[in-house]
Amino acid sequence: MKEFELINRYFKGRGITRRDVNLGIGDDCALVTVPQNCQLAITTDTLVAGVHFFDDIEPRALGHRALAVNLSDLAAMGAEPTWVSIALTLPSIDQQWIEELTDGMHEIAEYFNVQIIGGDTTQGPLSITICAKGTVPEGTALCRNGAKVGDWIFVTGPLGDAGLAIESRKQGLTIEPEHLKHIKKRLNFPTPRVAAGQVLRGLASSAIDISDGLLADLGHILNMSQVSATVNIESIPTSDAMKASLDFEQQLPFILNYGDDYELLYTVPDSNKSMLDVKLRQYGVEAICIGQIKSGEGQIDLLHKGEKFTFKHQGFEHFSKDLS
Amino acid sequence: MKEFELINRYFKGRGITRRDVNLGIGDDCALVTVPQNCQLAITTDTLVAGVHFFDDIEPRALGHRALAVNLSDLAAMGAEPTWVSIALTLPSIDQQWIEELTDGMHEIAEYFNVQIIGGDTTQGPLSITICAKGTVPEGTALCRNGAKVGDWIFVTGPLGDAGLAIESRKQGLTIEPEHLKHIKKRLNFPTPRVAAGQVLRGLASSAIDISDGLLADLGHILNMSQVSATVNIESIPTSDAMKASLDFEQQLPFILNYGDDYELLYTVPDSNKSMLDVKLRQYGVEAICIGQIKSGEGQIDLLHKGEKFTFKHQGFEHFSKDLS
Repeated sequence: MKEFELINRYFKGRGITRRDVNLGIGDDCALVTVPQNCQLAITTDTLVAGVHFFDDIEPRALGHRALAVNLSDLAAMGAEPTWVSIALTLPSIDQQWIEELTDGMHEIAEYFNVQIIGGDTTQGPLSITICAKGTVPEGTALCRNGAKVGDWIFVTGPLGDAGLAIESRKQGLTIEPEHLKHIKKRLNFPTPRVAAGQVLRGLASSAIDISDGLLADLGHILNMSQVSATVNIESIPTSDAMKASLDFEQQLPFILNYGDDYELLYTVPDSNKSMLDVKLRQYGVEAICIGQIKSGEGQIDLLHKGEKFTFKHQGFEHFSKDLS
Repeated sequence: MKEFELINRYFKGRGITRRDVNLGIGDDCALVTVPQNCQLAITTDTLVAGVHFFDDIEPRALGHRALAVNLSDLAAMGAEPTWVSIALTLPSIDQQWIEELTDGMHEIAEYFNVQIIGGDTTQGPLSITICAKGTVPEGTALCRNGAKVGDWIFVTGPLGDAGLAIESRKQGLTIEPEHLKHIKKRLNFPTPRVAAGQVLRGLASSAIDISDGLLADLGHILNMSQVSATVNIESIPTSDAMKASLDFEQQLPFILNYGDDYELLYTVPDSNKSMLDVKLRQYGVEAICIGQIKSGEGQIDLLHKGEKFTFKHQGFEHFSKDLS
């Protein structure tokens, strides 16, 4: 099957059609129109087989996940996702597999009203690179450098589930079937917090999506904002699956160092705190406060039941974006 | 070296800074502003080691080429290149190699006033995916579907040099050193026809960059425009290197089927033909007419010295984007 046929069969004429797409798949470039008074937000993320996902991942999940991790970056800026370009590198043509992969892509794209406007298909070791674009009203984007002393630190949902799904397979942990189902869904079909991100515009002072782990990503906000933070460990939300499967000490590396859940981490000035809860609830998202920004130079103080807590990173090898 | 350090060392703070980039490398997304009354043109292309380039390619050439093939797609739409996102998958860290790779990227980006606004670095088999963006005044983009009966068919420069460079190595062809130098440069450091593409706005009725070969890419224009074409083989420009290295019959597969030179192929109504030459000359580009559009359904008739000519594709295996 030629590239041309592959694109025609699995991409062209499928999925949603946005009115701001003037020319979609099939020419040298796509052409789109960005609304006046909006900035364009652009992000790109690659998933490589064996590095970012298990080789035997179900293709529908891979398609979903490849888009989700990119839409999560747009969410973290408060942007409205609009268009994606998909570069697909496949070792061979397995039509059933590609059908399911692209089903997964089209499903999440439609859910978030995103149009696939183009891409490239090449032969090679399995990987997917997506470049996602979105729009955000001028001057309202959520950046990493806006956290101020006194701001409260929030997350959008439970942490560590996706990491638990990865390690339960790698380390052969015993997890109850209902919990295993839940954490696998969190790993394979993460929900980018797109609506929450847009609600946070005008309320949050900074935001980031947790892709590298809570401590690492909070560290990015602190360094860019030139502040420090206190985090109350017992305030960090965890799922029933996490609570039932691991004790407190065992949970820590998952909730502090694993990032594949794609929840948002954000800071909110005290004056916006009451409004935050009201607005987020309308979208079914809880505002979960886990700490506060203080003055300093990028230090994170962990508290457990009011006492200073020292966390020794257990350093297991997880899916990593780092090159060594 | 962590992803963070790698990006800081080789990308952040290097290269040009455009005024329309509101936020560059270092947050969840980049933020840019598209000028009013402009459309955004978007394209993405992947280069995979061993598929799109020899494994031992010099890294500076790889960096140049990865950007060039994407800028060529923007050129084919008549767009002005503005920003690129770079997804880099590397098997390991070789600092000297990455230094040269990114030098190659920064050089061509600066030459075309393009800012690298973000990307992703991951570990895996060597490949580069770039998503390039550009702007084009509303309604002036050059599409593949605008060729009309009677339009003249043009190319921007000699064809087949890059193919000759690839095959001379694969097949061990004997090429004079000065010619070898020329064709290697054409393969490794192709010049996307960015200025020519912008000049063609308002003059050309359709355009495409020759990435799959003259016949294949002309075929795309014909199919999208629902017309046929006559091509005069002896009008197709070739370099001195090509003329000196191969006889007429040997040249044909290179000039008709090889596409790695990234010249533009475009059609121009008779009424614009005289203006075309004047305008292109200002940018040092020659308008080379190779044939004419006629009515039909995608048929290409080759003529040689006025006689109908049948070309049997020799079917050598070249770098291919096709999946099999």
